Order: sequence, then structure tokens, then C-alpha cells
Amino acid sequence: MEEPVNISIDLKLATPAYRQIVDAMRVRLVEEDLKPGQMLPTVRRLAMELSVHFNTVAQAYRELAEEGWIELKHGRGAMVIARRAPRPAENAENSKIFSERLRELVAQMRASGMDALHIAMELRSLAQALER
Amino acid sequence: MEEPVNISIDLKLATPAYRQIVDAMRVRLVEEDLKPGQMLPTVRRLAMELSVHFNTVAQAYRELAEEGWIELKHGRGAMVIARRAPRPAENAENSKIFSERLRELVAQMRASGMDALHIAMELRSLAQALER
Repeated sequence: MEEPVNISIDLKLATPAYRQIVDAMRVRLVEEDLKPGQMLPTVRRLAMELSVHFNTVAQAYRELAEEGWIELKHGRGAMVIARRAPRPAENAENSKIFSERLRELVAQMRASGMDALHIAMELRSLAQALER
Repeated sequence: MEEPVNISIDLKLATPAYRQIVDAMRVRLVEEDLKPGQMLPTVRRLAMELSVHFNTVAQAYRELAEEGWIELKHGRGAMVIARRAPRPAENAENSKIFSERLRELVAQMRASGMDALHIAMELRSLAQALER
């Protein structure tokens, strides 16, 4: 059965629509709202739901397939698969880049006028979810 | 006197170089390593230091000037200025987008194989810095 993906994108943002789809779906995959064996909507249907060109969704699905999250099916559907954990060798370098991006994102939040204590609270609540 | 900016960029990343410069400098501005009144290197000098075209640095400086962090000077230098806090009206919408990006970034970190507890620790240490 097809799973509703429950994502939304904002075409006004600078981030390309396909990237927004990938990022939003990756959250749902990592957090296991979408589990191995579940079917995703066809490219055409999701494109209609999000009001984007079907090539945009096709590109997002290809990227998620390359990352090992989904398997593309005939008729342009896709199934969530059990993802092999990435090799530890890739992580040390990644880890540094991600830490920097995290710091940059927090700086952007502060620059946009968000209250520091509010940001801190969000960070703590994300940390708590990871520690469960 | 010119302040060394101490940033580094990675031309192998998908993120454009000018964006990396903006993001990295914004961290230093928000964290007040760079303070109002301090001079930044000229466009040409920073371009040389980072091995990028001077237009790349010029674009980054223009963006930081638009965000209200720096004032561009003749001869393509720039001075850090006291930034007016953004209007609260802009924040509610921003806040939701940033929270989503934070969640997406954490999902990317986990997807790359980083240990959940390690990520949690980083989040907590960022939170702690904000609470000071």
C-alpha cells in the first residue's frame, strides 16, 4: 500500500524544489515514519500533490535511491528499502563539515532575529529525541 | 586595522564558494569574533587567501552588506557595522523554516552514519553556548 508522504515544499525558497523534497523525505526516512517495505506515491501523483513538474519528483526519487533509501519501481513508483549503514571511513570528514553547517545554521537563526534561548531550547529538544 | 577573517572554504562542496564565505563569516559576526568598527580584508586580498576569483568575494561582501553586517568601502574593503536587529514580524515565519532546516540537517548527519549520541552532544554544546 502507498504511504502518504506528508511533506510540504515552498517554491518561494531559494532551495530547489527537488532538494526540498529530498531533505524533507530524508527526515521521515531517518525518523522511521517511512519504513522498509512501504511504497511511496508514484512520481506523477506526488508531483500533482506538491504542484511541481514530475521531473522534479523523479530527480528527488533518483537522489534518494542513490543514497540507498528507496528502490525505484516500474511505473515510477518507489519502495522504501532497508538502508545499509554508511562506512565509518566516510564519517570523520563528514562529521567536521556537518558540525560546521550546524554552527552556520545556528548563526543564521540568530542573525534572523530568533531569540538565543529559543534556539537553545530547540537544540536541546532535538538532542533529547536522539538520546531516546 | 584589518582583521584576519580566519575562514576556510572547500571548493569540492556543492555549496557555491560565495555562499560558503557568507555562511562562515556570518558565524564570526554573530559570535562577535568580528566586531563593529573592525575592517575586513579587501576583496582582492581575501580572494587571494582563499584562492577564489575576486568576484566571488565581492558577491559575498555584497550579500553581507545587504544583511546589514558590513559597510562596503572604496577600494573594495569593508567595515563591520553595528547591525540593527531584524523586525520581530519577520521572525515567526523564519522560525518555522529554520526549525525544519535544523531537523533536516540532523537527519542528514544521521543518514551519513554519524552516531546519534555524538550528534546529541554537539547539539547540547551549541545550546549551552547560546545560554551563556
